[in-house]
Amino acid sequence: MFDVILKNIGKHITLSKEEEDYFTSKLVYEVYKKRDVVLEPGKVALYTYFVTDGCLKLYEYDNNGFENIITFVPKDWWNSDLYSFLTQQPATQYLQAIEKTELLKLSKTDLEDLYVKIPKFERFFRILHQNSHLALTNLVRNNSSLTAEEKYDKFVERYQGLELRITQKDIAAYLGITPEFLSRIKRKRKKMDS
Amino acid sequence: MFDVILKNIGKHITLSKEEEDYFTSKLVYEVYKKRDVVLEPGKVALYTYFVTDGCLKLYEYDNNGFENIITFVPKDWWNSDLYSFLTQQPATQYLQAIEKTELLKLSKTDLEDLYVKIPKFERFFRILHQNSHLALTNLVRNNSSLTAEEKYDKFVERYQGLELRITQKDIAAYLGITPEFLSRIKRKRKKMDS
Repeated sequence: MFDVILKNIGKHITLSKEEEDYFTSKLVYEVYKKRDVVLEPGKVALYTYFVTDGCLKLYEYDNNGFENIITFVPKDWWNSDLYSFLTQQPATQYLQAIEKTELLKLSKTDLEDLYVKIPKFERFFRILHQNSHLALTNLVRNNSSLTAEEKYDKFVERYQGLELRITQKDIAAYLGITPEFLSRIKRKRKKMDS
Repeated sequence: MFDVILKNIGKHITLSKEEEDYFTSKLVYEVYKKRDVVLEPGKVALYTYFVTDGCLKLYEYDNNGFENIITFVPKDWWNSDLYSFLTQQPATQYLQAIEKTELLKLSKTDLEDLYVKIPKFERFFRILHQNSHLALTNLVRNNSSLTAEEKYDKFVERYQGLELRITQKDIAAYLGITPEFLSRIKRKRKKMDS
């Protein structure tokens, strides 16, 4: 059950067997059905989530009431409404399963405690925060500078194969375009490939 | 010379005298005149900068050629083109002194070395990265949801007193409005205060 997360942690830090046991004792395993909501606006994000199987989407509604998907969270990725998790103010984003999803959640309290007990986790989450800063910067830049087609190519590159499991509606909400426009892009891409 | 930065570090971690000495031995002190450029697009951000006196501005040009000020960096603040610093790809942002500025710079190599020699710095920069994530999230949210007047109020609140040292042109470039529109907001605010 903990193989995926320990391998993920192992990318940046090396834990002893005791440290691994202490860390995994703090994780809570949960299973969500397709469309189940993991976190929603108004509630405080008490946990950060690590997906061990399946896929979540992190989204919010823009001023015009359109669903704006910020990121998909497939297997081996961490996420939460990070702003809410860090500040413990109410969330503004939804975290929802787009298919049956298994995850491990870690509470803010346990994470703070982990930093003190096993300081190596400072390094792990320092790097994770760096990466999420880079991702957020990319998101802001791409939104303002790329065409819908270029965004689609970045999406396929970023989520490798995941596009087959995500609905057309969700891909369109991630790209900020209509499902009709998405179909047009995909037809064009198909022609180019054939 | 190192008082300001050691106090800044002391907000999150406690260093021994030896650790302080090791850390400060890695810092390079520099003085910039008003309008001097610290970092510019095309060059790689080899350093992160800590302002000990004066003020920098971090900015880029948008697709329409308008100067877009992302943040001011007054005394006691860290900054750089963080994307470039973390990835060592060429910068896309300018870092420039808006008045005579003294700073301490720390190279990426020395920072990586610091993480290994004094792991407490992992904690310090983990927290700093968290804060910059929150700031970036706030920036994106405010840009899309606040009126120019609300942005001005946030600006005054965020930089307490600094608005007296920044040109009207730069404040307008930060708020994303014309200097004329800024004058109108300030006249309105003055009337409300009197």
